[in-house]
Amino acid sequence: MNDYAIGVDLGGTNLRAAAVTRDGKMLKKLSGATPVSAGRKAVIADIVRSIQTLRAELSDRKLVGVGVGIPGYILMEKGIVSGAPNLPDFVNYPVRDEIEKGIRSKVILENDANAAALGEQWLGAGRGVDDLVMLALGTGIGGGIILGGKVLRGYLGMAGEIGHITVVPNGYPCGCGNNGCAEKYASATAVSAMARLLNLGHDLTAQQVYQLALQGDARAQQIFETVGVALGTVLADLINIFNAPLFLLGGGLTGAWKLFEPSMTRELTRRSFAYRNKKLRPQIKRAKLGSDAGLYGAAHLPFQAN
Amino acid sequence: MNDYAIGVDLGGTNLRAAAVTRDGKMLKKLSGATPVSAGRKAVIADIVRSIQTLRAELSDRKLVGVGVGIPGYILMEKGIVSGAPNLPDFVNYPVRDEIEKGIRSKVILENDANAAALGEQWLGAGRGVDDLVMLALGTGIGGGIILGGKVLRGYLGMAGEIGHITVVPNGYPCGCGNNGCAEKYASATAVSAMARLLNLGHDLTAQQVYQLALQGDARAQQIFETVGVALGTVLADLINIFNAPLFLLGGGLTGAWKLFEPSMTRELTRRSFAYRNKKLRPQIKRAKLGSDAGLYGAAHLPFQAN
Repeated sequence: MNDYAIGVDLGGTNLRAAAVTRDGKMLKKLSGATPVSAGRKAVIADIVRSIQTLRAELSDRKLVGVGVGIPGYILMEKGIVSGAPNLPDFVNYPVRDEIEKGIRSKVILENDANAAALGEQWLGAGRGVDDLVMLALGTGIGGGIILGGKVLRGYLGMAGEIGHITVVPNGYPCGCGNNGCAEKYASATAVSAMARLLNLGHDLTAQQVYQLALQGDARAQQIFETVGVALGTVLADLINIFNAPLFLLGGGLTGAWKLFEPSMTRELTRRSFAYRNKKLRPQIKRAKLGSDAGLYGAAHLPFQAN
Repeated sequence: MNDYAIGVDLGGTNLRAAAVTRDGKMLKKLSGATPVSAGRKAVIADIVRSIQTLRAELSDRKLVGVGVGIPGYILMEKGIVSGAPNLPDFVNYPVRDEIEKGIRSKVILENDANAAALGEQWLGAGRGVDDLVMLALGTGIGGGIILGGKVLRGYLGMAGEIGHITVVPNGYPCGCGNNGCAEKYASATAVSAMARLLNLGHDLTAQQVYQLALQGDARAQQIFETVGVALGTVLADLINIFNAPLFLLGGGLTGAWKLFEPSMTRELTRRSFAYRNKKLRPQIKRAKLGSDAGLYGAAHLPFQAN
């Protein structure tokens, strides 16, 4: 069919949009800075403009609809964002309706981590698998749960908060109020914080810690060992809960896969009897689509609805 | 309609069967000892006999089908049990087909904890709620996850193993190979073990420890405090993962609700930001149907399929 959908990834830093065909071919992609400081109206106007630009260039095709990934909790029926730490201006604002007004096409909002998981399931490392759980290791840990090919959203759009699973009951404090959340041990932010705790350096990025580990620095290696232990603990919990055939890890920190994989696998082997058994073992794989996962996933939503 | 289904609860100790109408009325219930030592053929014959007895007494009604709750992992498509610690004789045996042969009606197998969760969702504390997670606090902790009114089974029937979520990373060893599983802290078995660790008594049942706590014994109270902390930790994880509106606790240990509820709620409040917020807070409730939950849930399966 000669139709397409538009996926939008509304990040706190970048605003991206892409036109994707029903069989998953990306026709065109736009990207720019998100004008957060100019306020939500300016951001919505930018989204509308991006959609119109794509539409004008693809006027020989039919637009099925638009999916918008947002770093926040989405109330699907109302089309509003009920919480968004990085886009506070968008909370309780009729985001869906405001975009729809500008483009006269159907819009579906989705949490950005959910959209990324859906994108990987549709076209990436989860292709052909109906049930998977994805962890995106970035500033925090985003989670997306796909069951039967559909996003598990929860009754207030807050499902999949995997980064806040407790891995160390009295561990590092987390902004959510808990102590010992997974994302305090296995995110890029956590790697930087641990580098500071180990006096490796004051403001090292996860990438710099990774380089030090590659160069043989034992403390830097210890940090990635800790990342792996936390991931193994969380994944063992998720295996016990979901018995899904596939778990995906995405996000920048997965560039350090070789460094955290041994302790992750060791911990998984220790904690999950299903993982220890080759017949029962789910696959733990790296996501494939990088930052495009969310764009693909957002674009997939209108196709799922139509 | 004048039809009914039969729910069977095949336990390691008791074998029970009940006829239930489409609108949830239990017409008749049978119960007896499970002849485990006589072997699986004798057990299957007993199940078939129970079904035939119920059927003979309800010959004026139409049997829709039979659901059988089993303490094991079920491969739904094959109708076999892939693992069952308390019924090892049943593993890799064509349980469904053998029962079907005897009764000439459709049989659906289900994990017993899943069946109990489904029963509570259909007719108990979860009535009217589509999504819930239930924990059955007994010898271990059984878990059942209901999403959209249906059991989440996982690809090998092993979903919902909530008792093996890690709550204390280097805690008590568990038979599953892990350390610090929830069921080592919040099951009847755990209560007895902790009573021994505190020199309260060598072979106290959870019920006896409960009585001591009611009489003011500080160590017994400390045990139920520990139970509550573990439950609060697990529930906070599950709230973050599922964002379900309802979480149910069932099983004998919930008789001690008053003793563990304060520390459970305190831990939930500490660990779950959704729970702290009255608008976002899910309900945590006691299950209602007791040991009949599994019978009702098993009987619901044929209705769901037809």
